[in-house]
Amino acid sequence: MNATAGKLIGVGVGPGDPDLVTLKAMRTLGSADVVAFFAKAGNSSHARTIATPHLRAGVVELPLHYPVTTELPSCSAAYRDALAAFYDGAAATLETHLKDGHAVIVLCEGDPLFYGSYMHLHARLAARYPAEIVAGVSGMSGCWSAAGLPMAQGDDVFTVLPATLPEAELARRLADADAAVVMKVGRHLPKLRRALACSGRLERAIYVERGTMADARMLPLNAKPDDEAPYFAVVLVPGWKRQP
Amino acid sequence: MNATAGKLIGVGVGPGDPDLVTLKAMRTLGSADVVAFFAKAGNSSHARTIATPHLRAGVVELPLHYPVTTELPSCSAAYRDALAAFYDGAAATLETHLKDGHAVIVLCEGDPLFYGSYMHLHARLAARYPAEIVAGVSGMSGCWSAAGLPMAQGDDVFTVLPATLPEAELARRLADADAAVVMKVGRHLPKLRRALACSGRLERAIYVERGTMADARMLPLNAKPDDEAPYFAVVLVPGWKRQP
Repeated sequence: MNATAGKLIGVGVGPGDPDLVTLKAMRTLGSADVVAFFAKAGNSSHARTIATPHLRAGVVELPLHYPVTTELPSCSAAYRDALAAFYDGAAATLETHLKDGHAVIVLCEGDPLFYGSYMHLHARLAARYPAEIVAGVSGMSGCWSAAGLPMAQGDDVFTVLPATLPEAELARRLADADAAVVMKVGRHLPKLRRALACSGRLERAIYVERGTMADARMLPLNAKPDDEAPYFAVVLVPGWKRQP
Repeated sequence: MNATAGKLIGVGVGPGDPDLVTLKAMRTLGSADVVAFFAKAGNSSHARTIATPHLRAGVVELPLHYPVTTELPSCSAAYRDALAAFYDGAAATLETHLKDGHAVIVLCEGDPLFYGSYMHLHARLAARYPAEIVAGVSGMSGCWSAAGLPMAQGDDVFTVLPATLPEAELARRLADADAAVVMKVGRHLPKLRRALACSGRLERAIYVERGTMADARMLPLNAKPDDEAPYFAVVLVPGWKRQP
């Protein structure tokens, strides 16, 4: 640990609504010298947009542009190599500012340590520099809150599943949990519908697009007439059968 | 829906740190006429304590005292009947204020719709009165953030398990998930240790007590010398094996 070094701070800015930023995140952002954020090349960062009202004028910004997103299959060696090199480079960029004694804030949609890219920087830097996490409201909490959908209670088993799983595994895992959130729905929606039907969960499944945006769309999956879905759409399967 | 009626608002106040309250929660609390909160009889409400700096002087307070907590087994008919009558009565109390046109805020630790008692009021009232949810930072996010522990990434399967499950089922479910949070550890810790060992997860299990309090205690479960644990202790099993 370098005594004169700066500090790495992963700040969760919540699921999208700028009012779902915490007081701690707001204060941390307001004191930042340097902010980093991930974005798809050519796109703006959603986390950066949420943070806008809280940043000081003149803050140094470090946009980190993913070299690939969906152009390569995520299981391929080329994809993994490209991302590993990208995260190595991003960590090196942050390190130049950490060495200068700056607090470097990484903006994270939702919660930093729950399915967030920040973790790749944390894994590369947190052993050598002081690191702090500001927990955030997760994207899934934003979705079920916007839908007013009680998700899990008492001794419910709750699970988060990627829609990328094989159909039989999705069906098995859905049948094995009381409540579930299925992420990364996108082109997997037809398969997911079959897995939900097979596991007896289709009737209670709620489809959510842009969950905490002003233009959010949510409806029972059974009432959705088509199989078009963006990558970030989620399906919520509420549990809570044993209500006193 | 009664056009002249008030509004039910479930407000998540986060995991404990008063700075992990969201801007939306702070503003909602500041405008409240009536706040309700659950507490064990004779104990103060943790959610009420977190909300203190944000409430107006003169706000009407409705403490809702659980008639039983751990005195009866939670699977017994007597326990379920006592709780059902309690939630019915609590909903009736809130309804007198809703009928008077007040916004009635229910304070919730963590997130209102994720393992929270608010859901019992929501289920009884939200079909007849306008209801709104203010999502909060969950208790588990507070715990893994305080521990600086990357939890789940990419296509990880994440699960939340109650430690009350039978040992074999705990072991099966732990082995079947990449990342897990085990809740309600308490007297189940010896059984949970065996299930973690059986599923190959003991080495990465982190024990957390009072996760986001000033007196938080967290250590590798393997380094905890005794099996004493409070009811609300949790065990975190981080996933994220496939790091690019």
